Amino acid sequence: MIPAEARRRFRDGVVTPTAGWCPGFTQANLITVPRAQAWDFLLFAQRDPKPCPVLDVLDAGAVAGPLLDGDVRTDLPLYRVYVDGELVEEVADVRGWWREDLVSFLIGCSFTFERALGAAGVPVRHVEQDVNVPMYRTSWRCREAGAVSGPLVVSMRYVPGSLVETAVAVTARYPAVHGAPVHVGDPRELGIADLDAPDHGDAVRPEPGDVPVFWACGVTPQAAVVESRPPLAVAHAPGHMLITDARDDDYRV
Amino acid sequence: MIPAEARRRFRDGVVTPTAGWCPGFTQANLITVPRAQAWDFLLFAQRDPKPCPVLDVLDAGAVAGPLLDGDVRTDLPLYRVYVDGELVEEVADVRGWWREDLVSFLIGCSFTFERALGAAGVPVRHVEQDVNVPMYRTSWRCREAGAVSGPLVVSMRYVPGSLVETAVAVTARYPAVHGAPVHVGDPRELGIADLDAPDHGDAVRPEPGDVPVFWACGVTPQAAVVESRPPLAVAHAPGHMLITDARDDDYRV
Repeated sequence: MIPAEARRRFRDGVVTPTAGWCPGFTQANLITVPRAQAWDFLLFAQRDPKPCPVLDVLDAGAVAGPLLDGDVRTDLPLYRVYVDGELVEEVADVRGWWREDLVSFLIGCSFTFERALGAAGVPVRHVEQDVNVPMYRTSWRCREAGAVSGPLVVSMRYVPGSLVETAVAVTARYPAVHGAPVHVGDPRELGIADLDAPDHGDAVRPEPGDVPVFWACGVTPQAAVVESRPPLAVAHAPGHMLITDARDDDYRV
Repeated sequence: MIPAEARRRFRDGVVTPTAGWCPGFTQANLITVPRAQAWDFLLFAQRDPKPCPVLDVLDAGAVAGPLLDGDVRTDLPLYRVYVDGELVEEVADVRGWWREDLVSFLIGCSFTFERALGAAGVPVRHVEQDVNVPMYRTSWRCREAGAVSGPLVVSMRYVPGSLVETAVAVTARYPAVHGAPVHVGDPRELGIADLDAPDHGDAVRPEPGDVPVFWACGVTPQAAVVESRPPLAVAHAPGHMLITDARDDDYRV
């Protein structure tokens, strides 16, 4: 399926996590804030490129751009709306919240490198188990920018111990979609108490010999919204991404 | 010499191009504009990451940051000052122009990968010939952002034909400092009429069998200043860079 067709289906009401949709095309995190807060958010992303690799920024009020020819208010399967940092709604269409001063950021997503992991022989457990990737708020702090601050959020993939080096090398070639892991092994180093209780997504079952490997995650801007409390923010629901017209290979170094 | 010592010498009045200074430490382009124009400039950089890879953005009014502990108004050997897009002064100290609303962008510089080119056996002719790297305005347009638009500026290095592939592979691993070339071969493809008449820097003598190879250049924001005419802009004089405390290796993928 081509991305425009997937976006049409979501626009027509299909609600589903997007892992595995449109193989080879890049999926993106969405974070939309008013122009008055956009400078701090762009600077935050610039200063924290591992969790917030910016693929594109739309002009204020714009609902489409070079990476998608549709409508960023309807073409994701599910959104989260935050008012003053509080999650007020999870909804499939945010046209009712739209304002002409809203600036949309498209942030790279680690789904982009999962096909490359598979091609390199690294099993992707959450895809095997047909669940959403598990995501965790950590105790690590992002570098702040003006009024915007927050913790690092990570995604976790169990990787067979003998393949951790391969997983690092493969993903390091995708710096625009989180790149190499931020941590391998003990989750307590990140302040994560229980891998079976992710903050977003689903718990994943490890196979014998698996090691937890953590990548910076594009949900990080939403944690910053919660902490920084802009008057309005619109984001994708975790795992329910924007499927862009860009190719995964475009982001490989 | 460590970067802090180099910056001290420039602060004390030494004026010189910085190629070859502090090997292993990253040099950066500087572009400083008022906060009112900074959003458009940051978006321009975001949309044109090949010529404008942002290494850091200082807070409004700030003269130091994580990449340098000195004073960005004095610690470069030579500056250019633009008023309404006109070059009005080339000066070694810009404290007299400083305003509390000025935002400084540090942009990656291709000097960063020259040591890696040398280590891979690729001769760097302008270093051999002890001149500044030649830079050219091209007929290629950058993707614009709000009020900011301009042409792509490139740096050129002659590379032996048999080593072009090596030069591409080596520099592709440094996406934060312009990365792989934008063009190899015929300069007319870029709208460059005469390689012996660079717009900035010095003409370089090719050796037999050399091919011109073009990389996106951090002088591009200055071309955008000329075209977009912000009320004030401060930049490094071409080739007279900020020497940061970051390591070249930090920017290798």
